[in-house]
Amino acid sequence: MELVWTPVAPGVWRAQVGKPDGPTLLSAAHDVPRVDALKEMGSQSPSMPFELKTVAGEVADEFTSARIPLGPEEHLYGLGLQMHGSNRRGEVYHLRVDHYASGHDRLHAPVPLYVSSKGYAVFFNTSRPITVYAGVGNRRDAKNPAARDRNTDPKWDAQPPADAVEASVHGPGMEIYLFAGPTPLEAVERYNLLCGGGALPPRWALGFWHRTPSLDTAEDVQKEVAEFEKRGYPIDVLGLEPGWQSKSYPCTFDWSKDRFPDPRDFVSKLKSKNVHVNLWSNPYVSEASPIYKALEPNYGSHMVWLGPAPDLMVPHAAKVIGDFFTKTHLDIGVSGYKIDEIDGFDNWLWPDHATFPSGLSGVRMRQIYGLLWQKELDEIYRKQDRRTFGLVRGSNGGGSRFPFALYSDTYDHREYITGMVSTGLAGVLWCAEARDAANGEEWVRRMQTAAVSHIAQLNAWASGTKPWSFAGYEDSVRSAMLFRTRLVPYLYTAFAQYHYQGTPVIRPMSLVDGGEETDQYLLGDELLVTPMLTGQKSRKVRLPKGDWYDFDSGVRVGNGTTIEITPALDKIPVYVRAGALIPVLSGKVLNSTLTPDSELEIRHYGTEAGHGWLYEDDGETFAYEKGSFVLQKLASDAPSGSTFAGSISAAKGHYADGFKHITWKHVGP
Amino acid sequence: MELVWTPVAPGVWRAQVGKPDGPTLLSAAHDVPRVDALKEMGSQSPSMPFELKTVAGEVADEFTSARIPLGPEEHLYGLGLQMHGSNRRGEVYHLRVDHYASGHDRLHAPVPLYVSSKGYAVFFNTSRPITVYAGVGNRRDAKNPAARDRNTDPKWDAQPPADAVEASVHGPGMEIYLFAGPTPLEAVERYNLLCGGGALPPRWALGFWHRTPSLDTAEDVQKEVAEFEKRGYPIDVLGLEPGWQSKSYPCTFDWSKDRFPDPRDFVSKLKSKNVHVNLWSNPYVSEASPIYKALEPNYGSHMVWLGPAPDLMVPHAAKVIGDFFTKTHLDIGVSGYKIDEIDGFDNWLWPDHATFPSGLSGVRMRQIYGLLWQKELDEIYRKQDRRTFGLVRGSNGGGSRFPFALYSDTYDHREYITGMVSTGLAGVLWCAEARDAANGEEWVRRMQTAAVSHIAQLNAWASGTKPWSFAGYEDSVRSAMLFRTRLVPYLYTAFAQYHYQGTPVIRPMSLVDGGEETDQYLLGDELLVTPMLTGQKSRKVRLPKGDWYDFDSGVRVGNGTTIEITPALDKIPVYVRAGALIPVLSGKVLNSTLTPDSELEIRHYGTEAGHGWLYEDDGETFAYEKGSFVLQKLASDAPSGSTFAGSISAAKGHYADGFKHITWKHVGP
Repeated sequence: MELVWTPVAPGVWRAQVGKPDGPTLLSAAHDVPRVDALKEMGSQSPSMPFELKTVAGEVADEFTSARIPLGPEEHLYGLGLQMHGSNRRGEVYHLRVDHYASGHDRLHAPVPLYVSSKGYAVFFNTSRPITVYAGVGNRRDAKNPAARDRNTDPKWDAQPPADAVEASVHGPGMEIYLFAGPTPLEAVERYNLLCGGGALPPRWALGFWHRTPSLDTAEDVQKEVAEFEKRGYPIDVLGLEPGWQSKSYPCTFDWSKDRFPDPRDFVSKLKSKNVHVNLWSNPYVSEASPIYKALEPNYGSHMVWLGPAPDLMVPHAAKVIGDFFTKTHLDIGVSGYKIDEIDGFDNWLWPDHATFPSGLSGVRMRQIYGLLWQKELDEIYRKQDRRTFGLVRGSNGGGSRFPFALYSDTYDHREYITGMVSTGLAGVLWCAEARDAANGEEWVRRMQTAAVSHIAQLNAWASGTKPWSFAGYEDSVRSAMLFRTRLVPYLYTAFAQYHYQGTPVIRPMSLVDGGEETDQYLLGDELLVTPMLTGQKSRKVRLPKGDWYDFDSGVRVGNGTTIEITPALDKIPVYVRAGALIPVLSGKVLNSTLTPDSELEIRHYGTEAGHGWLYEDDGETFAYEKGSFVLQKLASDAPSGSTFAGSISAAKGHYADGFKHITWKHVGP
Repeated sequence: MELVWTPVAPGVWRAQVGKPDGPTLLSAAHDVPRVDALKEMGSQSPSMPFELKTVAGEVADEFTSARIPLGPEEHLYGLGLQMHGSNRRGEVYHLRVDHYASGHDRLHAPVPLYVSSKGYAVFFNTSRPITVYAGVGNRRDAKNPAARDRNTDPKWDAQPPADAVEASVHGPGMEIYLFAGPTPLEAVERYNLLCGGGALPPRWALGFWHRTPSLDTAEDVQKEVAEFEKRGYPIDVLGLEPGWQSKSYPCTFDWSKDRFPDPRDFVSKLKSKNVHVNLWSNPYVSEASPIYKALEPNYGSHMVWLGPAPDLMVPHAAKVIGDFFTKTHLDIGVSGYKIDEIDGFDNWLWPDHATFPSGLSGVRMRQIYGLLWQKELDEIYRKQDRRTFGLVRGSNGGGSRFPFALYSDTYDHREYITGMVSTGLAGVLWCAEARDAANGEEWVRRMQTAAVSHIAQLNAWASGTKPWSFAGYEDSVRSAMLFRTRLVPYLYTAFAQYHYQGTPVIRPMSLVDGGEETDQYLLGDELLVTPMLTGQKSRKVRLPKGDWYDFDSGVRVGNGTTIEITPALDKIPVYVRAGALIPVLSGKVLNSTLTPDSELEIRHYGTEAGHGWLYEDDGETFAYEKGSFVLQKLASDAPSGSTFAGSISAAKGHYADGFKHITWKHVGP
């Protein structure tokens, strides 16, 4: 069946196959396409590399399927928060929200978006689990190669080339979106803008996070924060784990009177040190919760840890939760949440056939439950004109705009880095947190990886590990945490780009120059990050075209070549593009909060004239949506002898505050 | 919703939830319940340990689900050909036909049958993939324990106890069968009898199988068979791999004129040595096949290795295949087939949304395709009044009566043994074949395991390994193959019990005495088999109650205890129940075919009077269905000094032939 395509914005088309029913990913996330930004994108008449009419759809025996043409040379990227590999072509993906353990099917965020090396993207907008045959399968009516005889033909192929991506849901319909490029990066930007643009976190969220042991009291936590300050480790966010609640698993959502007798006082004391409080919870309601009864009868048929799951599709349930959270947490200054166990796994969660009052089956509710909770929490903060940022263990397509980063209970360092890379193709953020380590070296490398993640967190709720727990490695860990905190102005600008233009903060090489490395990525426009694993004394780094310089020394390392590096243990290998201007915090830094004394250093690399950007707003509210922000253009001369000068000019917007102390520095040998 | 239960036979009930549509497992297998045998079963008024009305069903948001009560102490067994573990309680099973790689969801035979330690079984009769929550999940309306606080209560449980098994399909309905016991074994027998009784193979199928390299010519194969004879290795079946076909992957189903210029002559030459020819194929049709055009338009929408898949639900397609196979293979004496790759895996097979002319979606066709092919091949042999036996890589519930054993491309020795054990709970047979080995010890242990499998096969199509390939180990391998071949009278009797009474040939300890070992099992009524793995110098054996004796020496090893054994490399540890009479072939043995000179030895163990059974029929045709068989009762005195005598009396049936040379032997130290 030929589909009818509706243009949504320049370079974005939508069609439906069959009769989609119930919520979709986009409707669950209540996304509003950023049509203005989509119109502003460069390409004047973006088009797909194939004719739209060649996309086919079919409804047969309860299945709705789609078929999108695929060229013989195309590579495919994306399909969610994937922990292995890059090119997804040649495999079948049964995309389902789950607590990732292994494989490529059951993921924390199984975003059904794929991006082609030919420079376009395809999004299946459905709240049903979807199976994507990524260049797998030979239809009888396709132009197939001739069959070969396996007995005698050495060219026989166990998986003959396919001419299409096929995808199907068990249900009466689904929506499909196409995103033009002409580059893969632009296609991803269009997807993110369709989802409302990427999240713009409050500035403090980009500093360092720490989570204390579950049963710590208010006093314990305050002591720990004081210890950070005393030892010179920066901290912006302090996360409390289950023990802050009077009961957990299932949850009361209410403070433990024993451990936190005066929560308002506790939160404001930390706030006075510019430390923001984040609260753990999972969604399952204890009978002892003050809102247990008010949520009746808006619970699902099955319980999780003997607590029912509220149906957030029902407005009344959302209001009960929102009101209670606002009164009990937001109104005393809590900055956000970590929503745990929203993804499963099977043995803990409700069954596929569970029923919810809104009429959704368990399997569909599971696909969108993470989105619904993110929306709920985003909204209650928005009502207070405060930005939040949090963590969530399950998400899905459509959620680009939500201020939440994903995380996992798996703890494979290599996978965490690949996961980071894959977020750039999924419109999600990732927290490659450090939890614990077998030795000092691992601890340093873990904390370094955390430092170049979307959210930099030490999650010591179970292990109690401190940044200084490994003797002899305290300085290396401090150095990683300070690197991160100093980088906030650059990161905040990169997040602004994510928000306003849809450009991922962490970019896989497939979006940069078609590379397929899973262990290096661009962080923002200018930095090439290549994390080290424990036990690794050296590693290979593939430098894209253009000159690249070592972040610390400014030494040129190469251009378009693959180099072997041997970074010392205290070094995070980060390389800077020639002519880049990198804005960082200098001077004494305790956290990312700006004061009148805050110092900005603008670092220049290479021999060319410098260029860069600096985004600023109040870092806390939604005033930026009404124009209260400034995107500034950084420019400098090419350094020549001792002569070097730079200038800042507002390219867009207006915003009164800003750095009072700015220094320009050419970094070089 | 309360279900309406229809009694099918004593101790068997059926209900439907919602409106089942299309084929079920039982209808795809065309099973005819053996109501006569079900009536003959001992228990006069079999009942379930719970009231039938406590079983609930529901249809909501496209899902059909069932809920079966579960007591707090029950253990659950079964759920298909499982490669790990025994008690299935506490996990979620997404049962789906696939080429098993790992896990417990995607199996060669995901039979949706579970057996309770309380002595009953439940079968979900649906051709849809089904998810079984085996004692997982807490409904709000159940009698649940009180929730605990994880913060402070050490008794908090990550998976609170559940009071039910829930199961669901994405579809409008399904059927459920309940089987009473009172023992778990009787519940399984009832299931097998409902499916038409277990397979009764031709006698030759119980001897030793060998598969030659794919591109061997008729001459090569004949030489290999002669080599077996010369070296004294028994062989009953010779399997040809893809190279016998003119083209394969996809298949012509027709002989290669190059490699097999005179197939009739080839088959009859082997037949003259009592060696039966088995032919490999997969179901995917080459354009070069003589029946390619005749099968049009009865193919699925997608191809496998660029060959379309015939829709065997369409009678015309079944007839075209049956006629061609009969003319080209059966009529020249071919004894059966090995049907490969009928199970997937995903990247090779058709997608879930593929369509078939009969109206079935790909996902449902995949669940029953193995059953359909088994039925097809069983039927064409039945038309010639010949029994066949073959191999098939995918099956499902309802297939107990089909004369096919499953096999896998995985090759983990430990898993193969556990798989063997699990067949007794699934109504399927298993071929724990030997393929190759890293060293002589492994080769011996692998061949020994093959020798105590339902089908004993050396599958050397890829490796070319011969029984005598490892120098110094030739005799140990020969000994294992002869052990197997000599055991055929006993095995044939055990298969008769499977056929007539539904009793599995290989019985997990859960059906014997509630044990949960995955590395030992009963083979028939009297033998306890405990295979050795490579590198294992010793192992534990748990002896059920009653005295047990070493098969070879007749030495008593214990009673109800766990012993540590250290069998020599040439020994398969097999133990015999006190008072058992084991009929075996004695004298010179080349294969299992009986001649007027065949000698039967009846071996007695222990100090008690002996008892046993011997089933005989022509071993080739279906004459047994018309009463041409004999079930004989073996009895002997307790051995006393040199005095020992036994007798045979027909307990049931009549059959003229039989052994002319019978010796009775007390085996003891």
